Amino acid sequence: MANKMGKQDNNTLDFEVQTMNFHRLLVAVDEDDSTSSIRAFNYAVTTAKAFHLPLAIVTILETADLNIYDSLSPEFLADRRQEVLAKVNQYAQKAVDFGVTEVTPLIGEGKPGNIIVKEIIPDWRPDLLIVGSETKEKSRLFIGSQASYMAQNAACSVIVVRANDQFY
Amino acid sequence: MANKMGKQDNNTLDFEVQTMNFHRLLVAVDEDDSTSSIRAFNYAVTTAKAFHLPLAIVTILETADLNIYDSLSPEFLADRRQEVLAKVNQYAQKAVDFGVTEVTPLIGEGKPGNIIVKEIIPDWRPDLLIVGSETKEKSRLFIGSQASYMAQNAACSVIVVRANDQFY
Repeated sequence: MANKMGKQDNNTLDFEVQTMNFHRLLVAVDEDDSTSSIRAFNYAVTTAKAFHLPLAIVTILETADLNIYDSLSPEFLADRRQEVLAKVNQYAQKAVDFGVTEVTPLIGEGKPGNIIVKEIIPDWRPDLLIVGSETKEKSRLFIGSQASYMAQNAACSVIVVRANDQFY
Repeated sequence: MANKMGKQDNNTLDFEVQTMNFHRLLVAVDEDDSTSSIRAFNYAVTTAKAFHLPLAIVTILETADLNIYDSLSPEFLADRRQEVLAKVNQYAQKAVDFGVTEVTPLIGEGKPGNIIVKEIIPDWRPDLLIVGSETKEKSRLFIGSQASYMAQNAACSVIVVRANDQFY
């Protein structure tokens, strides 16, 4: 924008607006199907379907939740891994049924924010991570306490989806 | 999903996938036009245009940056307010030129995260806040240190847009 003298104003915005969409999505879902996690999933599949984007769905087996006895039991861990895998596969099937054409289920093990930021994102290379903001009462720690960690530390953009918007 | 015996599995996902889009957007832009701020703006106008959504654009005059002398000077503050207003109006014009039909420029004064969470969001009532993740070197504090505060405390969903995705 030029001022009245035809000269450039120092405060003029000198960038050109560009269309900006994301291209590759990762959604984190917790094992407890918390409301915000399901809403994050709904947003992820809606966006992936609308823009024909590849979508990975990740659930993390939170080993910090296990007591020492269980965490040392190979049978217990194998069972838990099967449960987490079954869960993420159900989410993946729901995404496919909804109309997302490229769906990849992923699982990890450890502290969710840490594993997602340091392992899952570098492997899957999304440009947008979608997470819920809260967990159910009495649920495991999953996303709630991890969302701001991921928003700060992820190598990609992050959307934190609220369970319900206060105003709606 | 029923198991082989036709009974419900305890781990079955019992929710129905629903289309989930946002309806009312707020984008925060810093005064320094940092790369992530411009990217956040690009994402905001792209989304607002594509889905025909109302978009508010907010810039905050950061009074914490002012020295005591300036902050006590009515003339200085009046000038700074004019600058911030001129800036947000330029962003608003860019949004209109890009094709967003309902654009509202907003300004605030204080600590950005705090003002946006406690004043701007309750007033404008967006269901999605869009912020950049970083600032230019030597820039004011704006979004960088405030993004995770907003992601944690906003009453709506929050997307933190990176200046550039590490992988692209």
